[in-house]
Amino acid sequence: MPATLFIVGMGPGDPELVTLKAARILAATRVVAFFAKRGQPGHARRIAEGLLRADAELLRCEYPYTTEIAAHDHGYVTAMAGFYDASADAIAAHLDAGRDVALLCEGDPLFYGSAMYMFDRLAARHRTEIIPGVTGMSACWTQARLPLAHGDDVFCVLPGTLAEGALIERLQSCDAAVIMKVGRNLEKIKAAARAAGVAARAVYVERGTMRGERVLPLEEVSAAAPYFSLVLVPGRRRVR
Amino acid sequence: MPATLFIVGMGPGDPELVTLKAARILAATRVVAFFAKRGQPGHARRIAEGLLRADAELLRCEYPYTTEIAAHDHGYVTAMAGFYDASADAIAAHLDAGRDVALLCEGDPLFYGSAMYMFDRLAARHRTEIIPGVTGMSACWTQARLPLAHGDDVFCVLPGTLAEGALIERLQSCDAAVIMKVGRNLEKIKAAARAAGVAARAVYVERGTMRGERVLPLEEVSAAAPYFSLVLVPGRRRVR
Repeated sequence: MPATLFIVGMGPGDPELVTLKAARILAATRVVAFFAKRGQPGHARRIAEGLLRADAELLRCEYPYTTEIAAHDHGYVTAMAGFYDASADAIAAHLDAGRDVALLCEGDPLFYGSAMYMFDRLAARHRTEIIPGVTGMSACWTQARLPLAHGDDVFCVLPGTLAEGALIERLQSCDAAVIMKVGRNLEKIKAAARAAGVAARAVYVERGTMRGERVLPLEEVSAAAPYFSLVLVPGRRRVR
Repeated sequence: MPATLFIVGMGPGDPELVTLKAARILAATRVVAFFAKRGQPGHARRIAEGLLRADAELLRCEYPYTTEIAAHDHGYVTAMAGFYDASADAIAAHLDAGRDVALLCEGDPLFYGSAMYMFDRLAARHRTEIIPGVTGMSACWTQARLPLAHGDDVFCVLPGTLAEGALIERLQSCDAAVIMKVGRNLEKIKAAARAAGVAARAVYVERGTMRGERVLPLEEVSAAAPYFSLVLVPGRRRVR
């Protein structure tokens, strides 16, 4: 029986929002790989804390950068590809030796996750199983108690890195939206939400389901936003 | 201690894709409410099968229609509002008597779910806790092994009920998309995907994570599509 790579969605942060399947796989798999930023414990690793085997062997894959850089920077792209190659090699060494590996991923692995780069490199040669997870954005609108999309709503996920004009246009043309990568883009996002006429119903969520969570109307946010923050624009219900 | 309404996301269909939190709540809650179509067991109810207490008391809320009707039909809107009012009253009767209620929901409750209509009616007067779940669309792209969105992708959820021109325009203006409500709209969706230049990478998924699941290229689908079907258009990765 060849070894299996399990790419495991660990959900948004609350360890209780892990699926039964993910918990079962972690209870059965000794080698556990995860991504982490330098000096950080690793977000998915922290979620998994109470679910790992006592004899778990941790394979830490540390990003070469501490903050995200524009994807068109050539040096960044090259360094990241090299990092993903090396991480895939380290995982493959276990698989080749017949040991299953669980790769921990925040949220849902194939939705804005780094795990897909491991999938690209490993799935052709190794048995691979992917376990979907609750996304960070689901956790955020749940914590905000904000029904997000309904019926025939068009829903959009927008990166806060878009130019202000593009943000305005897209916010105007959809019913419900989530804006990611808020951080340094907060003031631009606020201006775009006002121009698009959605600022009054937009909600800001910081660190959803994690310690230090904050939920407040977008118009009341003033300080800089951290990495784990989102802006939610709920759809407008036509049926009640 | 007043009773609590738990609005519980049950995930996409595989009972193992329920969260630890949802499983814990179902093990502790005797009164279990769910929506079902006439003559059907109820999708969320079926997912919960092995997780309910032996002494569970089931509260079945049966939709007055067997198929979805255009939301602008006045008779439909009135009948649905009456149905939701009656369902909320039935749930409230248990809460008023001090009994917690778990309301089962497919996927993620606040994302295209019916549970939000119960939330609207009950949350102001009753303690309410919402538990997010894995969405049906996450299960579909996972089963299709299709990394869906990456980096700064703009991702869109589009109803297949949109006019062909609107579908084309939106498919052209986003990087990644999910088209819901495929059913009778299949041929229109195929034509729109071709016109937008995304047909070659579009994938059709029927009954993701459920019995009878099918995953195939959109261009190879010919028969009519059932309710639990989606079309996935993955984003194009810029970093590898």
